[in-house]
Amino acid sequence: MAQKGSNSTVKLLGTWSSPFALRGRVALHLKSVEYEYIEEADVLNSKSDLLLKSNPIHKKVPVLIHGDVSICESLNIVQYVDESWPSKPSILPSDPKDRAAARFWAHFVDGNCFESIDAAAGAKDEAGRMTAAGSLIECLAALEEGFQKSNKGGDFFGGQNIGYVDIACGAILGPLSVIEGFQWAEIFKAHEAVKPYMPTVAEFIEFAKQKFNV
Amino acid sequence: MAQKGSNSTVKLLGTWSSPFALRGRVALHLKSVEYEYIEEADVLNSKSDLLLKSNPIHKKVPVLIHGDVSICESLNIVQYVDESWPSKPSILPSDPKDRAAARFWAHFVDGNCFESIDAAAGAKDEAGRMTAAGSLIECLAALEEGFQKSNKGGDFFGGQNIGYVDIACGAILGPLSVIEGFQWAEIFKAHEAVKPYMPTVAEFIEFAKQKFNV
Repeated sequence: MAQKGSNSTVKLLGTWSSPFALRGRVALHLKSVEYEYIEEADVLNSKSDLLLKSNPIHKKVPVLIHGDVSICESLNIVQYVDESWPSKPSILPSDPKDRAAARFWAHFVDGNCFESIDAAAGAKDEAGRMTAAGSLIECLAALEEGFQKSNKGGDFFGGQNIGYVDIACGAILGPLSVIEGFQWAEIFKAHEAVKPYMPTVAEFIEFAKQKFNV
Repeated sequence: MAQKGSNSTVKLLGTWSSPFALRGRVALHLKSVEYEYIEEADVLNSKSDLLLKSNPIHKKVPVLIHGDVSICESLNIVQYVDESWPSKPSILPSDPKDRAAARFWAHFVDGNCFESIDAAAGAKDEAGRMTAAGSLIECLAALEEGFQKSNKGGDFFGGQNIGYVDIACGAILGPLSVIEGFQWAEIFKAHEAVKPYMPTVAEFIEFAKQKFNV
């Protein structure tokens, strides 16, 4: 059942392979928002007019198009969805301290974690890959420590339910199939708001081959 | 007069030269929060125990210490201040669409704008500096266009009062004394919540000389 919040049409422009578009889809699913999903068909080679028009600054998916307004940047989209459809479940916690902690870790994922992932993907030799992998392992250890400190009982960062940090972290699961087997990752990927949108490891490998010409 | 919001003590750990610490000071000033400002004395050469303990992940100022909780990352601090002391003036707008736009532009400042500033500062030759300066000019043009589109009448991004995007943009004013003379910059720097914390151009030049050994 669609939640009340707005009568305007909702569209999400994404690609199946985008870990950032996944965030938008999970948030919309959690809030039971009815929306049209538009696949940006050939993101590696060209960008659609709709993408260029709705995200002229960054020209990247995901873009949430709500009525005549475009919302860009995946974490921004998740916060927007939480605020525009304020009925339960809440994605961000209500206490300002918990909200600040959630934003801190989400920012950490997009900064430090993705920096290491990009460095590993773009490394020119084995030494570069090892250095990047070392940084990434440090990031994951910091995330794990943050999870332990902030956890209030439950499988997810915020407790019993998927929240902002889980959705932020979910974006690194695809690129990092190496972390399969971690309990949180398995629980997250199996969640009904995540499973339909999470590509398989085989699909990711095929995509990466095309992207990096290997 | 201090606003209600919390009885816990509030401290801000910063440095006078940090454009990010400036954001925290402006937000606290706008909300009339009584706080202790702690200058991180020698940020270029060493980090205090308090900084290492309160921001173990990034080890950077600013850090807002509220009771026994530390809030790191300047934009996170500004949002936290807005949410913890919810009385007027509001720093973020109330409408989700406007909030999303404000977060988008703040993120743009920290991403694209500072990337260009850092590239210019770290350029090894004149060609590199020119390329970085070109990127920065493009960023400022995009910001200006965003300002024109979102402006609802008034000197600031959000209208009549300083808001989230102004505070985010205020951080680039120090490093960029080149944009002196722009009307928004002059109005922002003269504001009573900003003026006490904004270093002079001469102070910035002296600091940059030490930082970059020139």
